[in-house]
Amino acid sequence: MLVQKYKNMLSGKSVIRELSEFATARGQEIGYENVFDYSLGNPSVPVPQEFTDACIQMLSEMGTNALHGYSPSLGITSVREAVAASLEQRFGLPYRKEHIFMAVGAAGALAHAFRLVTEPGDEILTFAPYFPEYGPYVNLTGAVLKVVPPDTDNFQIHFEKFEEMLTEKVMAVLINTPNNPSGVVYSAETLQRLADTLRRKSQEYGHTIYLISDEPYREIVFEGVDAPCVSAFYDDTVMCYSFSKSLSIPGERIGYVAVNPNCKDAETMVNMCGQISRGIGHNCPPSMIQLAVAKVLDKTADLGVYETNMKLIYKELTDLGFTCVKPGGTFYIFPKALEEDAKEFCRKALQYDLVLVPGDTFGAPGYFRMAYCIDTEKVERSLAALRRFVKENYYSE
Amino acid sequence: MLVQKYKNMLSGKSVIRELSEFATARGQEIGYENVFDYSLGNPSVPVPQEFTDACIQMLSEMGTNALHGYSPSLGITSVREAVAASLEQRFGLPYRKEHIFMAVGAAGALAHAFRLVTEPGDEILTFAPYFPEYGPYVNLTGAVLKVVPPDTDNFQIHFEKFEEMLTEKVMAVLINTPNNPSGVVYSAETLQRLADTLRRKSQEYGHTIYLISDEPYREIVFEGVDAPCVSAFYDDTVMCYSFSKSLSIPGERIGYVAVNPNCKDAETMVNMCGQISRGIGHNCPPSMIQLAVAKVLDKTADLGVYETNMKLIYKELTDLGFTCVKPGGTFYIFPKALEEDAKEFCRKALQYDLVLVPGDTFGAPGYFRMAYCIDTEKVERSLAALRRFVKENYYSE
Repeated sequence: MLVQKYKNMLSGKSVIRELSEFATARGQEIGYENVFDYSLGNPSVPVPQEFTDACIQMLSEMGTNALHGYSPSLGITSVREAVAASLEQRFGLPYRKEHIFMAVGAAGALAHAFRLVTEPGDEILTFAPYFPEYGPYVNLTGAVLKVVPPDTDNFQIHFEKFEEMLTEKVMAVLINTPNNPSGVVYSAETLQRLADTLRRKSQEYGHTIYLISDEPYREIVFEGVDAPCVSAFYDDTVMCYSFSKSLSIPGERIGYVAVNPNCKDAETMVNMCGQISRGIGHNCPPSMIQLAVAKVLDKTADLGVYETNMKLIYKELTDLGFTCVKPGGTFYIFPKALEEDAKEFCRKALQYDLVLVPGDTFGAPGYFRMAYCIDTEKVERSLAALRRFVKENYYSE
Repeated sequence: MLVQKYKNMLSGKSVIRELSEFATARGQEIGYENVFDYSLGNPSVPVPQEFTDACIQMLSEMGTNALHGYSPSLGITSVREAVAASLEQRFGLPYRKEHIFMAVGAAGALAHAFRLVTEPGDEILTFAPYFPEYGPYVNLTGAVLKVVPPDTDNFQIHFEKFEEMLTEKVMAVLINTPNNPSGVVYSAETLQRLADTLRRKSQEYGHTIYLISDEPYREIVFEGVDAPCVSAFYDDTVMCYSFSKSLSIPGERIGYVAVNPNCKDAETMVNMCGQISRGIGHNCPPSMIQLAVAKVLDKTADLGVYETNMKLIYKELTDLGFTCVKPGGTFYIFPKALEEDAKEFCRKALQYDLVLVPGDTFGAPGYFRMAYCIDTEKVERSLAALRRFVKENYYSE
């Protein structure tokens, strides 16, 4: 018999996917360049030439069995060493290869992190607004994701509600900074208070509450914004990283788990990841891509376009009277809708070929997300549509 | 708290890995070319030039966002179409893209197949001798792997024991033909009887018993051997394929699930794979590698060396008096040891720098595996060591 829980999931449609399908269909009618599709967080800037060159060079010069052969289950040793050295130089923590597990993208890294520290029935807390895939990612392991309501003033952490929900059943707290969908970067003050809370509660409950830090947007931080290293605040941090956004290679599924060197079980945890892999069919990330990213660890795609887009959109939104926390990074912005029901707001926007995603999906009803990883020229053209949409629907009141 | 089941696994050492580590260490003493390392099933023939050329061409000519962008969660549509067309042409079953789910290697494909049809506590049967990773692959899902003892006459299926173990709790039967470790290919007669048994028992129990067919060695079949298409015998077959061996690219983690088009739930099952992925952190295989294999679906590496090696070894073994089923494919052979305890036999062989793996690991004590995916020249040199080992230890009796 087919397993019902997966079969049941087929009837639930993703809002983001439905919107994206609308955008594609509408694009076939009026030309996709005329659809202002802010639905998908799909990196749009070119991959750095150094990455392409590294691949071509290895394909041309390396022995094919060395290039495409099995990777050890924790990742290729030289790649783990290179990642550790880069993290140490960048963040000042004594990372060694023993703290690094190469994983297939952030989703793969998270799949290992959750299984390291939770048994079925245990709870993981995250903070709204949050990436909706965290739901199936956690719940399909048998653990339970619970979502702390947002602090809508600034999309930092609502600590009162957090403390209420931080019961003895919670084995891990999952954060994402810079954040999808808010674009907000957690401040040093937020991270310090989070760490203090976790230490106090870990002691009170007699078990470590791990901090799982999902950091795929770490390299997309805007001018003047301080983006502190999460691991520096809390020893029991499991960092999950993906190169998808920094190198614009989301299809290549490459990232890593980096356990804080100051975590007393760090090396055991990395070795455990190798065992977890056997149960979920990973084994190792693609070898050629592992070797290629190791050659460009300190490079990024030209990410400046995202900041340019953010500034244009943020100015227009605030000029039009939206309440909006200014993003510190990523390629997302998360303004308050102009009516209570953000789904209705986004439905109306479609008539102006503006594809926006209601915040309900992210645990923050009444808000909406714009993913501005699109050409600046298109952003500019979209602003007239946005003005028209707002004026025709909300200014006559 | 760290999850104990994974932590406990760290103390269990893989016999194959220990042997392989011995071989590496011994190689540092006497030169690796003098260690006759038959321990690892690691493809040794070069990758086809067409694969390398396809990668370089795409890297040089395609837009980087198209090449490295997100793949749909079931796989890139054009790749699924190409795989389906190739399977249809090859096996005469009406495969369409709706029957194909692209997966990260056979391990990834199996991780999806097991979750499609088993809940925790359900049983999956496999047949000794078997690939030992099936144990953690299945058991870590919560299902239970049970192993039907071998038919040592020919390493086909021991049907009497199979029927005894095929209880109502069994939801799937897992086979691997051509087989690791025996090298044996299941005959049409075996597959027909297996299919008949599954149909009869499915009806008796009132639930479908699925056949999961792990086929990474499908392209390595020796001259004159008939390797029937498993799916042609049984509608409810889930084929799991990997390009690791056919293209010599095990590190690139690329394969697929192909559900038999005649299975009534085939399309639902493929869609369910996309949901299962979310729970185990897969999402999609590397995009560049998906696109590259689609361009070389009907190519293989030059696999003839494996047959050359097999013939040399098989002749020597039979000349020396070993009982040995002749392999029909793969790069493995699985002879009977010359003493009851194959572990002791393999331990003695190490003194001759022959690295053999005891059959206990594969559910067939008293036998041993040789993985002859090594240079023919080394195979030839190893035969003198094998002769010396046998004569000095077993001929004096």
